[in-house]
Amino acid sequence: MAYDAPMKDMLFSLEYLSNWSDVGDLPHYSHVDHDDIRAVLKEFARFCSELIAPLSSIGDEVGAQLVDNKVVLPEPFGIAYQEFVKMGWQRLTHSVDYGGMGFPGIVGAAATEMLNSADLSFGLCPLLTDGAIHLLDAQGSKMQKDRYLPKLISGEWSATMNLTEPQAGSDLGRICCKAKPVEGEVYRIFGTKIFITYGDHELSDNIIHLVLARTPGAAPGSKGLSLFIVPKYLESADGTYTKCNDIQCSSLEHKLGVRASPTAILEYEGAKGYLIGEEGHGLTYMFVMMMNARFAVGMQGVAISERAYQQALAFAAQRIQGRALDGSDSVAIKHHPDVRRMLMRMKALTEGCRALAYSLAGWMDLGKYGEDTQRPLAQSLAEFLAPLVKAYCTEKAVEITSLNIQIHGGMGFVEETGAAQLYRDARILPIYEGTTGIQANDFLRRKILHDGGGTACEFANLVAETERLLMTGSIKAKKISVQLQTARKSFETSLDWLLETAPKNMNAAFSGAHPFLMLTSNLATCWQLGRSVLVAEAKIRSNEDTEFMTSKVTTALFYAQHVLVDVMADGARVIAGVDNLIAANNSAA
Amino acid sequence: MAYDAPMKDMLFSLEYLSNWSDVGDLPHYSHVDHDDIRAVLKEFARFCSELIAPLSSIGDEVGAQLVDNKVVLPEPFGIAYQEFVKMGWQRLTHSVDYGGMGFPGIVGAAATEMLNSADLSFGLCPLLTDGAIHLLDAQGSKMQKDRYLPKLISGEWSATMNLTEPQAGSDLGRICCKAKPVEGEVYRIFGTKIFITYGDHELSDNIIHLVLARTPGAAPGSKGLSLFIVPKYLESADGTYTKCNDIQCSSLEHKLGVRASPTAILEYEGAKGYLIGEEGHGLTYMFVMMMNARFAVGMQGVAISERAYQQALAFAAQRIQGRALDGSDSVAIKHHPDVRRMLMRMKALTEGCRALAYSLAGWMDLGKYGEDTQRPLAQSLAEFLAPLVKAYCTEKAVEITSLNIQIHGGMGFVEETGAAQLYRDARILPIYEGTTGIQANDFLRRKILHDGGGTACEFANLVAETERLLMTGSIKAKKISVQLQTARKSFETSLDWLLETAPKNMNAAFSGAHPFLMLTSNLATCWQLGRSVLVAEAKIRSNEDTEFMTSKVTTALFYAQHVLVDVMADGARVIAGVDNLIAANNSAA
Repeated sequence: MAYDAPMKDMLFSLEYLSNWSDVGDLPHYSHVDHDDIRAVLKEFARFCSELIAPLSSIGDEVGAQLVDNKVVLPEPFGIAYQEFVKMGWQRLTHSVDYGGMGFPGIVGAAATEMLNSADLSFGLCPLLTDGAIHLLDAQGSKMQKDRYLPKLISGEWSATMNLTEPQAGSDLGRICCKAKPVEGEVYRIFGTKIFITYGDHELSDNIIHLVLARTPGAAPGSKGLSLFIVPKYLESADGTYTKCNDIQCSSLEHKLGVRASPTAILEYEGAKGYLIGEEGHGLTYMFVMMMNARFAVGMQGVAISERAYQQALAFAAQRIQGRALDGSDSVAIKHHPDVRRMLMRMKALTEGCRALAYSLAGWMDLGKYGEDTQRPLAQSLAEFLAPLVKAYCTEKAVEITSLNIQIHGGMGFVEETGAAQLYRDARILPIYEGTTGIQANDFLRRKILHDGGGTACEFANLVAETERLLMTGSIKAKKISVQLQTARKSFETSLDWLLETAPKNMNAAFSGAHPFLMLTSNLATCWQLGRSVLVAEAKIRSNEDTEFMTSKVTTALFYAQHVLVDVMADGARVIAGVDNLIAANNSAA
Repeated sequence: MAYDAPMKDMLFSLEYLSNWSDVGDLPHYSHVDHDDIRAVLKEFARFCSELIAPLSSIGDEVGAQLVDNKVVLPEPFGIAYQEFVKMGWQRLTHSVDYGGMGFPGIVGAAATEMLNSADLSFGLCPLLTDGAIHLLDAQGSKMQKDRYLPKLISGEWSATMNLTEPQAGSDLGRICCKAKPVEGEVYRIFGTKIFITYGDHELSDNIIHLVLARTPGAAPGSKGLSLFIVPKYLESADGTYTKCNDIQCSSLEHKLGVRASPTAILEYEGAKGYLIGEEGHGLTYMFVMMMNARFAVGMQGVAISERAYQQALAFAAQRIQGRALDGSDSVAIKHHPDVRRMLMRMKALTEGCRALAYSLAGWMDLGKYGEDTQRPLAQSLAEFLAPLVKAYCTEKAVEITSLNIQIHGGMGFVEETGAAQLYRDARILPIYEGTTGIQANDFLRRKILHDGGGTACEFANLVAETERLLMTGSIKAKKISVQLQTARKSFETSLDWLLETAPKNMNAAFSGAHPFLMLTSNLATCWQLGRSVLVAEAKIRSNEDTEFMTSKVTTALFYAQHVLVDVMADGARVIAGVDNLIAANNSAA
């Protein structure tokens, strides 16, 4: 199954929805220009289509395997990774001080999408390395940066995130791994970590594990966690990194999907680790990597949705079955209204999620490097939108890959078609890096209740502004505006209810966390599509790229009329109350 | 993972929602009494839990395999099938004239649920044999019945349904298989059939294929199809069935799920076939088997939902993670509001779909064997509800098995847990025996437009009657009544729109077919749960089984407030119109 990067829609979202011009004008990015960005993305698109996409089915079939204590990936993965490093793709968004290319995060978002459309399993390795680079860049000492960043940024070394233990999944306060101080920043790490993505393999020359562990006498719970750099290979006397650290990969998980990505159980048996920052701040530091990974997993959702949509569209265009409704001819199934409905739902959700995710990437850039006047709003919007992108883009990826199977009919259930693999691969997305439930709680607690709904109101005002602008547009734009307004009011009603209920009844409020997150995500996605209509109609008026721009408008209208309407049900669920929920569960248990 | 038949809820649905007493009073069923039914279901529950459920993971791991031109299933499947035959379970609902036990169809529904909760792959073999028995009973000649029914009803022989060909999936008019007349009822069959469930295997002593094929000079399209009995083994001179017919199983599909169920490509190379009824009526006859199989697939949806709910509940009760919202203690995750929400959604949908499906089974029984005064309404309601059960119970099974994975978190993505298998197995249900899209079109065309909405109005009146009765109940009952009323009005609005739009714009009407089917199914399910509240509250008033009955009421209220509310979105989708849908798809293509 081929992958063709949707360069046109990606650039549309980048250029018009992600504050591209604001970001590009920042002093921090003065060395890059828009033509460079387009050129590098086109080059990377070719790399993804030609080198990575063809690996995906082999990776799924063979999987990662533990052979004689070594983790073996299908051979083409090794070759592809070498090429990835040689072409310097890991360097894309990282600091020029350590060998990076220094492109904005919005460019990284597009690159992450393409690589993960090509293959989720392959994409996970650079994804985690990216997160580790951000963490070390933000929190590492000068010596740690000098030692690790050049090799990580070049891709010669990769990195992992070591949080989970058998008894500590979403609840990191239960982590038991121990760190015994040796001297200075040096500790010995003991314990078992599970679900470690790319926890062991031979693609890169070294693996830098970032490990949460507990120092002697540390406080209980998450406040007692410290963060350590634990390399697979330590420096030998000759300056090469060839000396094995005391880490064993004791097993790999046999998984539903992303089977070429080795998910390891790692046993730390006194491995040498280096403390990052201060003891007891480990989780705070780790949040940099987690936030980065959460955004990237949201992008994986967009990525696999795009791949599934491309496959469904190609199949529906060539499969002849049934007659047109007027009884005339046998037709390709894409002409049947119900298949068309499914295709449009896939397209509208994919483009909507892309728009949402890229706009978040833009605010992240502005929040980090923007002017003093831009940063506060950009930062709070980025924090507000982060759980939406993680949760909504991944939940919808599960739905979209399922629709791809449905469009294929019986053929979709046969593994050789590839539709089943996308469905299996996608299923991890709403789970890892914080389940949808965790995102919903984070959103309600930290992004809504924490500032008394302040950012939520700013968000609503921005949506309302887009509504007003849409009312000056075409009939379709006006229809979208009306739908947006209804949905925004539902958001505001739910918000008021939550702000009022939480202080009195936490159980009731948090029972509504999931539908509230879905409602807000749905609204935010349609808001971005509404913004895209403003751009598209201006282009249409000046006769630029009319066919594509018209399609943007109709897709947005479909979203508003067929997808956004779910806010009605979610709004009702938020305020439906919780009594029945508790009572019946007790009797069910 | 254990399976414990939910006998209490099954009997509740049977006794109070499926017209059990009306059915039991029919002359046709005068030989069975309620105690017999309870006893036989309990015995079958034990068989399913003890013998079949443990096979499920082995079947998934090993799968059906084609070895030296023979289809081999994992060994325990053969042993279990022998036991199934020995205990006479295939006989349950079939004619006493041919060795059956003659229990009502509603009892068969409950049995189908249990067998398929235990293992979908195993359940498929008897499911298809059941369908073939019904077909032959209704359409076979006396000689054909005498020859095939005793062996099929005993389970010594099994049966298959041969419709699909590479170019003919949902569109049966494209079938190319040829039938050349030899003499009398004897023909020679030529061609390739694909996706034939249990198309070849050695569980049973013979396999009776029911094959749609085209006779010389037959009309084009589905009107030119005739139906043939094509046995794997023909009668030898000594009266045994040991002579191979000219059928080759050329390959088995490598599938996402139900991997122990052999899905065969069959090559008919001049195989001997026996015409059923008259030439050119094949599809009409086949509808008996298809209708039967569609209902049974709906039951498979209920079945796998129940299994997933049981697994999720058990996991959520033992997995300790995170603190209670008041920050006090570490708790089992079933106490977290969002996990509780997911468990309640699974429970409400599973019990709701069970109620809906069992009520359909009751109407099917009444429609077949009822008094002259009962039959017309029962038949039209059965036809009205059939696509709802097929589509809704299977779509929701996909959702429920996905929620089971979500509750398991990372563990759900690891194959050994078993949650992934349920998710993979469930995915075929909205596809085979008519996709959800086919059900939606069938519903709109044959059950709504065909009688100008007549049955739809009768349905709405029955719902309204339940609303009125609920208004005389508790506060919870009244709340449910209000929600039902809102949903019914949405149904009526959509119905009016469809009746008005279809004559003018078929494309617009059929674009709404899917959301309309979902809306109607959702309403019909809540209607049944409303009926269950009427029963439960009467029981509570007389102090019978208060805990269980209270749980029925709270579950119904959860459904009304958290699930039924989706009708608002679906209603909006029905009447959203179709222009944008067509335009944007054209540009997408």
